[in-house]
Amino acid sequence: MRKLTLHITGMTCGHCLKAVSQVLHSAPGVQVESVQMGRALVTYDEREVDPSALVNAIAEAGYQANVVPDRS
Amino acid sequence: MRKLTLHITGMTCGHCLKAVSQVLHSAPGVQVESVQMGRALVTYDEREVDPSALVNAIAEAGYQANVVPDRS
Repeated sequence: MRKLTLHITGMTCGHCLKAVSQVLHSAPGVQVESVQMGRALVTYDEREVDPSALVNAIAEAGYQANVVPDRS
Repeated sequence: MRKLTLHITGMTCGHCLKAVSQVLHSAPGVQVESVQMGRALVTYDEREVDPSALVNAIAEAGYQANVVPDRS
């Protein structure tokens, strides 16, 4: 399992939090650690999940996500 | 039927438009003319509708509404 931080633009209200949260919770192989305005932290199974697929799923919900490079 | 303009604060995105729109569309005796970010225009039947009840219904959805005084 790997950790992934996503920067997300366009989130402005509680409905946005819920929308992004639903996208991530419904992705197989993804465990959602936290979703806040503008940022989500997940743990994912690298055999199952391509981070760019998460970015695309978030884009379909109307938000622009970017993978934050891991500093470790 | 009377016209009523509501100023609404806290609307920030398409979800907010939808939420406020649903509240107004579901109010009996109210005909929704337009809902945009920060403002809604409705026509209502004064025998059926108290504008303050609309303000309360919008508040329950998480937004603060104020009746804009009619200048006519």
